[in-house]
Amino acid sequence: MLTIKEYSALAAKAIDNLNLSSRKPEKLYQPIAYTLEGGGKRLRPVMLLMAAEAFGGDPEEAADPAAGIEIFHNFTLLHDDVMDSSDTRHGLPTVHKKWDANTAILSGDAMLTLATELISRVEPQMLPEILQTFNQMAMRLYDGQRLDMDFESRNDVTPAEYREMIECKTGALMGAATRIGALIGGSSQEDARKMEEFGMHLGVAFQIQDDWLDVYGDPATFGKPIGGDILNDKKTFLLLTAIERAGSLRNALNSAFSLPPTEEKIKSVRGLYSLLGVSEIAARTVSEESKAAIDALEATSMSEEGRDAFRKLAESLVGRDK
Amino acid sequence: MLTIKEYSALAAKAIDNLNLSSRKPEKLYQPIAYTLEGGGKRLRPVMLLMAAEAFGGDPEEAADPAAGIEIFHNFTLLHDDVMDSSDTRHGLPTVHKKWDANTAILSGDAMLTLATELISRVEPQMLPEILQTFNQMAMRLYDGQRLDMDFESRNDVTPAEYREMIECKTGALMGAATRIGALIGGSSQEDARKMEEFGMHLGVAFQIQDDWLDVYGDPATFGKPIGGDILNDKKTFLLLTAIERAGSLRNALNSAFSLPPTEEKIKSVRGLYSLLGVSEIAARTVSEESKAAIDALEATSMSEEGRDAFRKLAESLVGRDK
Repeated sequence: MLTIKEYSALAAKAIDNLNLSSRKPEKLYQPIAYTLEGGGKRLRPVMLLMAAEAFGGDPEEAADPAAGIEIFHNFTLLHDDVMDSSDTRHGLPTVHKKWDANTAILSGDAMLTLATELISRVEPQMLPEILQTFNQMAMRLYDGQRLDMDFESRNDVTPAEYREMIECKTGALMGAATRIGALIGGSSQEDARKMEEFGMHLGVAFQIQDDWLDVYGDPATFGKPIGGDILNDKKTFLLLTAIERAGSLRNALNSAFSLPPTEEKIKSVRGLYSLLGVSEIAARTVSEESKAAIDALEATSMSEEGRDAFRKLAESLVGRDK
Repeated sequence: MLTIKEYSALAAKAIDNLNLSSRKPEKLYQPIAYTLEGGGKRLRPVMLLMAAEAFGGDPEEAADPAAGIEIFHNFTLLHDDVMDSSDTRHGLPTVHKKWDANTAILSGDAMLTLATELISRVEPQMLPEILQTFNQMAMRLYDGQRLDMDFESRNDVTPAEYREMIECKTGALMGAATRIGALIGGSSQEDARKMEEFGMHLGVAFQIQDDWLDVYGDPATFGKPIGGDILNDKKTFLLLTAIERAGSLRNALNSAFSLPPTEEKIKSVRGLYSLLGVSEIAARTVSEESKAAIDALEATSMSEEGRDAFRKLAESLVGRDK
């Protein structure tokens, strides 16, 4: 089987083949090329390609759909950045900052259609199920984004609701990547569904771990400033768990979050999280979701080599050594 | 064959069947339901259904794809309204006014996926070509919208460039509707392409006629205030033709467009248009495009009954009696 680097390069090549930076009208396609050059781990296409090969497919034949998954992912980031008024992504100005909001809206729309077109480059007999998987995933993702927006104005969001939201917003896309990959590779429907479960649980674990790393991570490897979610009062799994368990510490928690956005605020919140055992609960939830992912993986009929590649991928994403 | 009213009702029923107004999250689906209730002529689904039946298909079986075309059309209007900051559509507040811009962006994204899903509800052996037709049309439409945005900041747009833009923005969608309808109805590839040409030329004629009606239409039937494009300095086919032919009247034309947005401005511009023969050129162009549409229609192997239905539809849209 290919390495993660090779899968990533394969998806990158399929994107390059689109020649986006030379297509016209320039102001439609250059923002798309810019967004896709921005980097990121290309994790979702890697998962798709790995699943395709693990079930006996030729990864080259899955390269266009893998590019489609990556373009879809970046479409959601592009529109999310407009909705959140985010100024930077991967250290570069966002499209609506570098160009304008209208450009970001329209180029994002084009990315969604382009992604659909690339996902559809599969054997005709596979097309109906793969397209349906993709469209259903996209609808779940909009559900998740809407829930995320609705949560902002609510004070009673539970950790369970948060889990549902990230299952839609992060889990569904990883699940679709592994399911579509499996189908392209020639898996049974049953194995494809198991692989969707694998991707979905891994996505949830990945997101909760990201919430955890924001508070407890190593600044050298996290990639974002530690404590950013706390400074922005973001309703993460950790905060919602803390609220649920706060009891008599509720006022202290409110006070900590009312502090001005400085290092002091991060320290206060971290202290309360420790008292409430929030770190352990988050770590346990990541473990549970990772285990559910691995259980689904082991239940497939995948080759031992493929299984091992996915175990290692999961370990690298949400393993203990983080 | 069914009547236009019956085709329209069939598409409306397929949309009703989606139960959009009761789906959750509410703030994702209610704006979609609101947009689709807003009225409009349902012209594109009518064209799709008529083409399906004209080639021997059962219009009931084309109802979901027809709904998909209508939802796609309304998605483009929804995002266009955000980009243009339009406050009303069909006399009702736009989604970004009634809710907010983020809601309009996200619900629009969901409409695009929903449209793709509905378009895909066809016999599996037809799916690859129908989906490709739909995706290519969508890409052309974004091209057109981008050109339209780029034209705003340019002073040298020619009528030929304008025609290209509306072929992308209006023609391609009508062309896709008639092509997809023909394919669902069981037409040959050749006939489907002819029907695409028919819809495309009809769309271009329709848009140029809309530009003409803005200046010369009957206020009782036009549906929008006469002269709106002039008051907004909109680069229509008429204005661009006037600029191209202005010669020594160029300064007079500039002066007329510098007037404050009152009835006086409309009168001055209309006077210059008369001197420059703009009305006749626009009317002739509408005729030429209509003739090209009918020529394409006549070149198909469609039944006489179907042909007649399309001739009448074209007449009602861009006929002399307008």
